[in-house]
Amino acid sequence: MKVQVSKKALAERFAHVERIVPARSSNPGLNLVRIDLGDDQLRFVGSNLDLDVRTALPADVSGEGAVAVPAHVFGQVVRALPGEDVALEVEDRELAITSGSFGTRLQLADLDSAPNPAFADAHAAELPGSALAAALGQVRYAAAVAEYQAIFRGVKLELSDEGTRAVATDGFRLAYFDLDAVSGLDAEIVVPARSVDEIVRLLEDEPVKLQVGEGSLSLASGAFEVNAKLMEGSFPDYRRVIPANFPVVVTLPAQALAESVTRVAVMADKTANNRVDLFIRDGTMQITAEGSYGRSQEAMEVSQEGSDAEIALAYNARYLTDALGPLTGDLRLSLSGPTSPSLLTEPSDPHYLAMVVPLRTG
Amino acid sequence: MKVQVSKKALAERFAHVERIVPARSSNPGLNLVRIDLGDDQLRFVGSNLDLDVRTALPADVSGEGAVAVPAHVFGQVVRALPGEDVALEVEDRELAITSGSFGTRLQLADLDSAPNPAFADAHAAELPGSALAAALGQVRYAAAVAEYQAIFRGVKLELSDEGTRAVATDGFRLAYFDLDAVSGLDAEIVVPARSVDEIVRLLEDEPVKLQVGEGSLSLASGAFEVNAKLMEGSFPDYRRVIPANFPVVVTLPAQALAESVTRVAVMADKTANNRVDLFIRDGTMQITAEGSYGRSQEAMEVSQEGSDAEIALAYNARYLTDALGPLTGDLRLSLSGPTSPSLLTEPSDPHYLAMVVPLRTG
Repeated sequence: MKVQVSKKALAERFAHVERIVPARSSNPGLNLVRIDLGDDQLRFVGSNLDLDVRTALPADVSGEGAVAVPAHVFGQVVRALPGEDVALEVEDRELAITSGSFGTRLQLADLDSAPNPAFADAHAAELPGSALAAALGQVRYAAAVAEYQAIFRGVKLELSDEGTRAVATDGFRLAYFDLDAVSGLDAEIVVPARSVDEIVRLLEDEPVKLQVGEGSLSLASGAFEVNAKLMEGSFPDYRRVIPANFPVVVTLPAQALAESVTRVAVMADKTANNRVDLFIRDGTMQITAEGSYGRSQEAMEVSQEGSDAEIALAYNARYLTDALGPLTGDLRLSLSGPTSPSLLTEPSDPHYLAMVVPLRTG
Repeated sequence: MKVQVSKKALAERFAHVERIVPARSSNPGLNLVRIDLGDDQLRFVGSNLDLDVRTALPADVSGEGAVAVPAHVFGQVVRALPGEDVALEVEDRELAITSGSFGTRLQLADLDSAPNPAFADAHAAELPGSALAAALGQVRYAAAVAEYQAIFRGVKLELSDEGTRAVATDGFRLAYFDLDAVSGLDAEIVVPARSVDEIVRLLEDEPVKLQVGEGSLSLASGAFEVNAKLMEGSFPDYRRVIPANFPVVVTLPAQALAESVTRVAVMADKTANNRVDLFIRDGTMQITAEGSYGRSQEAMEVSQEGSDAEIALAYNARYLTDALGPLTGDLRLSLSGPTSPSLLTEPSDPHYLAMVVPLRTG
C-alpha cells in the first residue's frame, strides 16, 4: 500500500480528526487514528467516544488496506514535513512517511484496538452548514459547565416541520436560535456541549446532511462525517419559564451595554455571583457594581416603553455579557419583574433569544 | 490630589509595572502598586521582591502625595476605560477614576504596606538598550529552570573595560553574547533569569544607564527605573570548559538544521534526553532519532573542514534547537569529540557563542 498526497491537504484535513482524539486516555486504543487506503482516497477515523470523525482525502493510492497509528505522533510528523508532497507506504509493520530528504518509519499499532465506528450510510435531512454552526455556536454558552443534572451540559436540537431550533440552558439562563431552514427530520435530541464545539469547528459553508440514529446524531458535510453520541434524559421544559408579559421594555445598543457591564463588573464581587445592578429611571440606565475593592458605575441613555416606573434589577455580569455576545445592533431588554426572567432580543434579527434570571436583591 | 492623563499612555505605561506585580503573594503588600503624584507627573512603583520597577508619566497634576491600590484591580479598570482621557482624584480614602460617563471609586490600601524601594540617584555607566536586550534575550535560554545550585538559574553580566558579556549555563550547555559596547563599569554580577525576562521586555531602543549597588543592579532607560536583586554565590568558571581544539568543523545553514532537528526529534524519546544522533560522512549529515513510536531521519549537505573521518554524535534535540535559535546565517559547528563540548557560532556575526555537551552514546 502506497499513497502520494500533498502535505498541505494532508495536514489540514488530518488536523480536524486529530483535534478530537484524546492525548491520553484510560482506553488504550483511543489515542489511535485508523487510516483506510483505497478507492483513490485516504480516510482517517478518530474518536473520543462522544464523537467519531471520519474524513476522506483524494490521493494517488496503490493497493488497499487499513492501519492504525498514534494520532498525535502522526500529526506532529505531518505538520513538520519539509516538502510539498508526501509519500506514505505500509511495509513491515511500519508506516513509512517520506518527504524530500526526510523520512519517518512509524510503528503500526494494533488495528483491532483502534476506533472503527460505523457511519451512517444515508442521511434523511439537510441544513445549511453555516446556519447550523451559527445556531449551535450562539447558544452553546448557556449550557452548564458542571451541574448535577448532566442534561444541562448539552445543547438541544429541535427538528420538525415547523422549524429548527438550537437551545441551551443551565437553569439560570437560556438561549435559543431559530434557523430559517427546515431539515426534513422530526426529532428532539441533546448533544453534549463539548461535541457541539467540535461540530461547529467542522461545519463549513456548505450543506450538512443529518440522520438521527439510536442514541446518535450523524452529520456529513463536505469531506467530513461525524457521529455525535446523544445525551439521555429529559431536557427541561424551558418554554414554561419564558415569561409572556413585560411591564417594561428598554432599548439600547447591545455592544455598548456589554462593554459597560464588563467595565463596571471589574469591581463586582466574584464570590457573590459577580453581581451588577441596573437602575432605570427617566431614560437613563445606571450600571453599578460594588465589591471589596470599591465600586463602579456608568450611565447609558435608553429608550423605555411601557411603565415609566423606576426599575432596579441585579444580574450576574457574566450572564449578561454572554447573552449579549451574539447581538450587534439594538438590544430589546424585556423586563418581567425584579425576580422573574428578563429577555434579550434584537428586533432587527429575530433568530436569537436569550433569557437571564435576575439575582435576588436586598 | 487630582490628575488628568491620557488613557492610552496610562494603560501602556502601567502595564509594565503591573506585569511584575504578583497576583497573589504571602506578603500582603506585594500585590499593591504605589502611586506618587506631584511635579507634573504620575509615578507607579511595583515590586516582586526580586525586581522593583518605577515608571513616570507626565500628567496635569494638582496637589501632591502618594497612595497605594491593588495593582491588578487598578490595571483592569484602566484597560477597560471608555474615554480617551482619565481623571484620577484622591478623596475620602478612595481613588476616584473617571472617564466619560464611567466612574470607579477604588478603596485605598495601606500606603505603609505597599512596596517603596529606593532607586539609584545616579548611574555610573551606560549601554545601548536594544543591544543589552539582545545579549540577555539570546543567552537566557541556557539558564537552568530548576537546578540544585540556584546560581545556574541566573544570567551573568561581565562588565569591564574589555567589553560586556552576558552568559548563561545550566552545566550541560552554555551561551554567551558579547556586546560591542563598553559600559564603563567593572563588575561581575548574576541576575535571576526571570528578572532578565522582564528587563528584556522593558528595554527599548534607547540608552540604558546602569549602576551596581549592594546586592542589586539598577537600570534606568526611558521612563523606567529598575532594581534587580542579584544572585549570591559563585558562577561556574565556564571558560575552563570551552574547548580550544576542534579536529572537525562543519558548516551548514543554521535554520535548516534547526528545522530538521525539530522534525526528526518528533520520534525522539522524551524520557531519554530527547536524543537525536548526527552522523557526518562524505559531506552529508544524517540526523536521526528513535523512540518507542518509530524512527526518523533526514540528510543535509554540509561542508567539512579538518579530519574527513566519519563522525557520530548525539545531543538533546532541544539543546540544539535552543542553541540555534539566535542564528540566522551559516552555522559553524566545531566538534571537539564525541564526549566533549561542541561549539555553535556564526562567522558572519561573532557576538554569540553556544556550547552544547553531547550525550554519551553506546
